[in-house]
Amino acid sequence: MENASSPSPPQKPTTLLTFPKALATSSSKIKHVIVDFAIKAKSIGVDDPRRIVHSLKVALAITLVSMVYYLQPLYNGMGDAGMWAILTVVVVFEYTVGATLCKGMNRGLATLLAGALGIGAESFASLFGTTAKPILLGCLVFVLVGAATFSRFIPNIKRRYDYGVLIFILTFSLVSVSGYRVERIIELAHKRLSTILFGGATCIIISMCVCPVWAGEDLHQLIAENLEKLANFLEGFGGEYFRITEGDKPSLASYKSVLNSKATEESLANFAWWEVGHGKFLFRHPWKQYLMIGALTRQCAYHIEALNGYLDRKTEAPSEFQKTIKEPCMKMSSEVGKAMKELGLSIKLMMHPSGSASAMHMESCKKAKEELNTILQTVMVGEHDISETIPVIAVTSILVDIINRVETISEAIEELAKQAQFKKSKNTKLDKKEKPNFLNDGGPPDPANGGKNRESVAITVASLNKG
Amino acid sequence: MENASSPSPPQKPTTLLTFPKALATSSSKIKHVIVDFAIKAKSIGVDDPRRIVHSLKVALAITLVSMVYYLQPLYNGMGDAGMWAILTVVVVFEYTVGATLCKGMNRGLATLLAGALGIGAESFASLFGTTAKPILLGCLVFVLVGAATFSRFIPNIKRRYDYGVLIFILTFSLVSVSGYRVERIIELAHKRLSTILFGGATCIIISMCVCPVWAGEDLHQLIAENLEKLANFLEGFGGEYFRITEGDKPSLASYKSVLNSKATEESLANFAWWEVGHGKFLFRHPWKQYLMIGALTRQCAYHIEALNGYLDRKTEAPSEFQKTIKEPCMKMSSEVGKAMKELGLSIKLMMHPSGSASAMHMESCKKAKEELNTILQTVMVGEHDISETIPVIAVTSILVDIINRVETISEAIEELAKQAQFKKSKNTKLDKKEKPNFLNDGGPPDPANGGKNRESVAITVASLNKG
Repeated sequence: MENASSPSPPQKPTTLLTFPKALATSSSKIKHVIVDFAIKAKSIGVDDPRRIVHSLKVALAITLVSMVYYLQPLYNGMGDAGMWAILTVVVVFEYTVGATLCKGMNRGLATLLAGALGIGAESFASLFGTTAKPILLGCLVFVLVGAATFSRFIPNIKRRYDYGVLIFILTFSLVSVSGYRVERIIELAHKRLSTILFGGATCIIISMCVCPVWAGEDLHQLIAENLEKLANFLEGFGGEYFRITEGDKPSLASYKSVLNSKATEESLANFAWWEVGHGKFLFRHPWKQYLMIGALTRQCAYHIEALNGYLDRKTEAPSEFQKTIKEPCMKMSSEVGKAMKELGLSIKLMMHPSGSASAMHMESCKKAKEELNTILQTVMVGEHDISETIPVIAVTSILVDIINRVETISEAIEELAKQAQFKKSKNTKLDKKEKPNFLNDGGPPDPANGGKNRESVAITVASLNKG
Repeated sequence: MENASSPSPPQKPTTLLTFPKALATSSSKIKHVIVDFAIKAKSIGVDDPRRIVHSLKVALAITLVSMVYYLQPLYNGMGDAGMWAILTVVVVFEYTVGATLCKGMNRGLATLLAGALGIGAESFASLFGTTAKPILLGCLVFVLVGAATFSRFIPNIKRRYDYGVLIFILTFSLVSVSGYRVERIIELAHKRLSTILFGGATCIIISMCVCPVWAGEDLHQLIAENLEKLANFLEGFGGEYFRITEGDKPSLASYKSVLNSKATEESLANFAWWEVGHGKFLFRHPWKQYLMIGALTRQCAYHIEALNGYLDRKTEAPSEFQKTIKEPCMKMSSEVGKAMKELGLSIKLMMHPSGSASAMHMESCKKAKEELNTILQTVMVGEHDISETIPVIAVTSILVDIINRVETISEAIEELAKQAQFKKSKNTKLDKKEKPNFLNDGGPPDPANGGKNRESVAITVASLNKG
């Protein structure tokens, strides 16, 4: 293992070689680190080329605003306050349009408010004479900064205005304190505010016009892709569990990222709130409903994680008991997976889910479930080895649980489709009252409308001319 | 519902009342909002009084550094560069010591590096004459800013040096660009750097000396508390599932926060990395191992979430089949809960887990499991209604899964105890070779050392003189 990168030739005296050898070793090590780093950086760029574009956009924005220093007419107008334009671009320019708008608006409004308050505080303190002024100003800064810092712990403020409060603290302290020394404070404030507006506007325009990255669109894609990831697991689970998958096995682990997607979804939804309408999304698109679907998807992912535990401890060959329930169990798993994939697709294409094939898959899922119940009822479970039987029964039970969860997800997607006015599929002849509610037994959702479903599902299936 | 807050008296003409009425309504609404806000703010302060202390600390730091403006000797030395001290305090002062150190160090080093590079770039560009200089500077800024922005997407850099890269971009642009206009750039850089160091040092000193909030300690508590939350669920689950809990039911939902604690744990561990030794934690405490335990705890929480699904759909009275397995099932659940509580406690007290009572509880858990297997083997499962039996069997299977997970958690805690040199309990007579590995059947962990365990558990139980 040692010196694998630079073996020393044995025929020459080693003492003379020590220095160049060490140099060669360390230089090859550095080379190795650099190459590794370059490969990693390249893969990050290839994974999502928008990252490279974003870097170029930031560089462009900063180069543009630094023109205030290079071009004489601009410099005459702004002077050294141009520094604030650069500072604004550096801290405001974020990856998505929503985040940039959020920071830009927060910075602009907070600067305005805090600047006005700061000037007010300075004039107020001036009334009390030169000795009392610094003491009064100090007290004012202490109280306001303390209160503002505390307000950052309040969830509603933290979520949307955290950066604004930070800038408020900064500007208020700077204005009220430097007002003690600077003579023409109004002029200073005016210059600074206009440069900040200039910097902020540059950011927002470049962010929105040059290859924009919309947080809303990312959220939309993420929710659809998360459904797809879970669907892939469910489609592959049967084959893996009953050991009939041969050759290259598809990796089932991609669902794991869904388990921890809460923070990403929430921040994207927050940023999407700031975004203007774009592409297929209007201003005030129901982003909250996406969070609801995301939460339900995550719920489902927790159950899949429990299911995945049973894949780890499977034995070499399936037991007798497994073989008897193999058919309906595999069908349940793959059909619920297909239904989920259709639901994800209906989000992706912004189509109403009632027109998709998901209802059909849920129906055959339900049939498989009944078949499984019949088999389990006839097979005397006690005849088999109990330690082999229990995990298999648990798997079927968790699968049924997942089916119920998928039904809830489907309802949430229908709600989204209603709120966001998704297109209806052409071959759907259903009106809203008859929308399919496919599977409705055993789960937590309301069991009130069990009667009509079968009928409406039949209509959907017929209208799709499939199966 | 309407106008509930200010009903208008019917005997007077309403037209005359419109304006005062509207005023009264809106003023009472505003009052309502303010009172609501105050109650919320108070509860946030009461929940964790360290938040109030933090707000006062920030206010103190800003008031202190603003002295550079008020006191003549300080102002003579620093001048308007004192502004940078205030700016530094506002952006660097974070809630935990680790986060403050992280930001302070990043800011200091990045300013130094970028300042030096910026001055270098400015002198280099000066060599090419007045016409070429701004073009050359613009190109340099473009390239370096683009590269630095891209580097923020690399996970390792993002995790620890994100803020440093931001400050690097800011300072490099400011120095190289303003160098085009400012004559004595070295003097400017020196003044700015010294004020930044002054602001940063103020932050770090106040953050560390006045009621410090250590990220490492918070992480330590969080991991222990998460184990406790899961333990509470498991202890209460049996009573809830078999409907024997009467009177005030303890809420079992507190475990839900564990499902989404990954981001918090990771950021705390990152900040803890920057912290110097404090209290019981030495510099380079094995924070990574806490993340490992946190991940295993979360795994366990996913299974508990699946278990929780079975609480939702329980019927009014327990079925016959449930009654037959009630005893061992409840014992399994409560004993694994107790074992988990002991593990959490051993982290909290920084005691070696081998001395705690958790091994004893795991042992009785294992006995209950064997008992359950015997009952299931004798009871002919087929005799009962299959739709009632399946979920119950699933519950027992998930419980067994949880027991295996807890064993893995216990191993991870033992590893932590070894790395962090936790105290050994006085009444433990075990040496390291004989450490108990209590439960070792059926689960994924290596089954190599199954023989010795029973013996060593017996020793622990005896040494504790309990049960």
